[in-house]
Amino acid sequence: MTTLGILGGGQLARMLALAAAPLGVRCRVLEPSPLAVAGHVAELVVGDYADPAALQTFAKGLDVVTFEFENVPAQATDWLQQHVPVAPPPRALAVGQDRIAEKTLFRHLGMLVPEFRAASTCAELHAAVAAVGAPCVVKTRRLGYDGKGQVRLHSGPDLPARIDAAFAELDDPRHGGLIVEAFVPFTRELSVIAVRGAAGAVAVYPLVENHHEGGILRRSHAPAPGLAPGLQRDAVQFATALLEHLDYRGVLAVELFECQGRLLANEMAPRVHNSGHWTIEGSVCSQFENHVRAVAGLPLGSTAMAQPAATMVNLIGELPSRRALLALPGVHVHAYGKAGRAGRKVGHATVVGSERAAVDAAAAAVLALGPGSAAEWGFVG
Amino acid sequence: MTTLGILGGGQLARMLALAAAPLGVRCRVLEPSPLAVAGHVAELVVGDYADPAALQTFAKGLDVVTFEFENVPAQATDWLQQHVPVAPPPRALAVGQDRIAEKTLFRHLGMLVPEFRAASTCAELHAAVAAVGAPCVVKTRRLGYDGKGQVRLHSGPDLPARIDAAFAELDDPRHGGLIVEAFVPFTRELSVIAVRGAAGAVAVYPLVENHHEGGILRRSHAPAPGLAPGLQRDAVQFATALLEHLDYRGVLAVELFECQGRLLANEMAPRVHNSGHWTIEGSVCSQFENHVRAVAGLPLGSTAMAQPAATMVNLIGELPSRRALLALPGVHVHAYGKAGRAGRKVGHATVVGSERAAVDAAAAAVLALGPGSAAEWGFVG
Repeated sequence: MTTLGILGGGQLARMLALAAAPLGVRCRVLEPSPLAVAGHVAELVVGDYADPAALQTFAKGLDVVTFEFENVPAQATDWLQQHVPVAPPPRALAVGQDRIAEKTLFRHLGMLVPEFRAASTCAELHAAVAAVGAPCVVKTRRLGYDGKGQVRLHSGPDLPARIDAAFAELDDPRHGGLIVEAFVPFTRELSVIAVRGAAGAVAVYPLVENHHEGGILRRSHAPAPGLAPGLQRDAVQFATALLEHLDYRGVLAVELFECQGRLLANEMAPRVHNSGHWTIEGSVCSQFENHVRAVAGLPLGSTAMAQPAATMVNLIGELPSRRALLALPGVHVHAYGKAGRAGRKVGHATVVGSERAAVDAAAAAVLALGPGSAAEWGFVG
Repeated sequence: MTTLGILGGGQLARMLALAAAPLGVRCRVLEPSPLAVAGHVAELVVGDYADPAALQTFAKGLDVVTFEFENVPAQATDWLQQHVPVAPPPRALAVGQDRIAEKTLFRHLGMLVPEFRAASTCAELHAAVAAVGAPCVVKTRRLGYDGKGQVRLHSGPDLPARIDAAFAELDDPRHGGLIVEAFVPFTRELSVIAVRGAAGAVAVYPLVENHHEGGILRRSHAPAPGLAPGLQRDAVQFATALLEHLDYRGVLAVELFECQGRLLANEMAPRVHNSGHWTIEGSVCSQFENHVRAVAGLPLGSTAMAQPAATMVNLIGELPSRRALLALPGVHVHAYGKAGRAGRKVGHATVVGSERAAVDAAAAAVLALGPGSAAEWGFVG
């Protein structure tokens, strides 16, 4: 029996555990909250990621450790690596936690990236904005999640004052300074999800088209409709180079822009990714199962689509009526077991089919549902 | 949050729990063994089904109780019904536990059944065999699982002696006497899996063709290849009548014979069924998800196939090599987390696709795998 440890006990860990069981892999999660939703379907160790006692309890008897989020404290990975194999490699975490290192690596691997400059002081921020040019986006170099910790700047007479304000808002020693990125007039946002196994085999899912609302992913369409054939090839080539460069094991996602018929790499996530949730029903082997296979040293599964079209809709803030949602024909529901809260991802729904139009119509029916009653689902925490 | 209790913690409860989580339904299982494999993905209460203290711990806070096996002690259902809704109704358990009541009901509902007679004494057994005619099968009226507790009788000079021997072998007061069934020269074995929801809606999966080895299900093919169109209609009509007659809620399976172009009903199982495991990948909504939906009072999902063809292969005795199994393209693996033992169902594999021949070829590759090493999977218990 392989036992897999997962740092973090949210919905990604929960879906990893659900995918792991049929492979004969048991999961144990470490999470500060006793309400961690992965604990419904896996063993739960409640504790802080940086607490040696909690890590010791968590690590006992594990065959391998992985994580569901990228901001894992270095103390945790440092300690764990001395006791149990960790995958993906913490080096990939380090790159993913630093927007400068990330974009530098992307460029090194031959990938286009939006123009960028680092800035640690307010004066450097002014210089960086001047070098990159407005419009541009100022972000913290580290952390930042779902659109938080970002300020967009446009040209105009008040630009210097806005730069000062952005610095005041975003400067925080914990975030390692700032980065200015050129605003890319992209046609659409795409992402690629790829997996690398223990023996170095790489498999890549079809490129997905993503739509955000309020900085949060709302819909993903797979495969990205009307994609020029060369772009999937470019994405596979880049993802493969990135996985090999990092000597990666597991699933990795890269968010991309399509701009004037070319791909630009925006950022990577060294983990299973929200834009890959459609793979549970939409592909032969889901991103969750392939991540488990990869980190457990098992052969990878096929990343081919199970049906010609899939659309995933995030359920944000609160779930719709359970009855209404489950009554929609052909809609696959994934409730995460979490209580509702503004902006929180509390579930997703996936539709697969042979026709893009029919799939999108069914997905639109999900989006059209009104909010449900909290009592009907009754999740707490 | 709906919390579902399941009596029994084997692979059926495990697959129910895996299907329940995405619906926001948590599961708790009651099982005498602390090694119960459903306990890997659900809360486990270790205790005997007839122990009031265990039942009390188990039932606390549950919204509904179901079961993964049909031989639930009446004490358990009697106690539980006073404290929490139980589905399917214990009346269906009672019918399913008694081959005479079962076949009598089938006939009452207009279904063909193999000729049968009850027998409680050796003299009655001789008379019953004479009435039914050899060849015939003698079975215990109650219990009996996977071909155990059966003796086949052929005509010949030693038939009276063989009847005496069959009585000596099978007579056991716990089994409520014997039943003699005519041996049916069937073309093939089929099964139908149907589900009835809280509001009385019924949905039926396509008929499946089943192949047994040594009395244990080995392969199921969905839909049953080359089926005459009227037979699916007949099966739907019968299953619907049966579900309505029993005021049933949940999934029910009926094993059938196809004989001279007609269906005969053999026996029913008031639960999710091994011949329906293909529905996890092969249908839009699996038998496990539909059972959870039905007993939790939620709308039913579609029983339509997700692809035109599916084949399920049972993994019996021991699992094949994990690496070899997972390296087979497009094969969906379900290991149950159980240690190997002769005749034990330790997992299954499902292949789905657009062409029957290709699906069967992939399933044959699973069957051709040699046994794996116990250490590779490492399950205990």
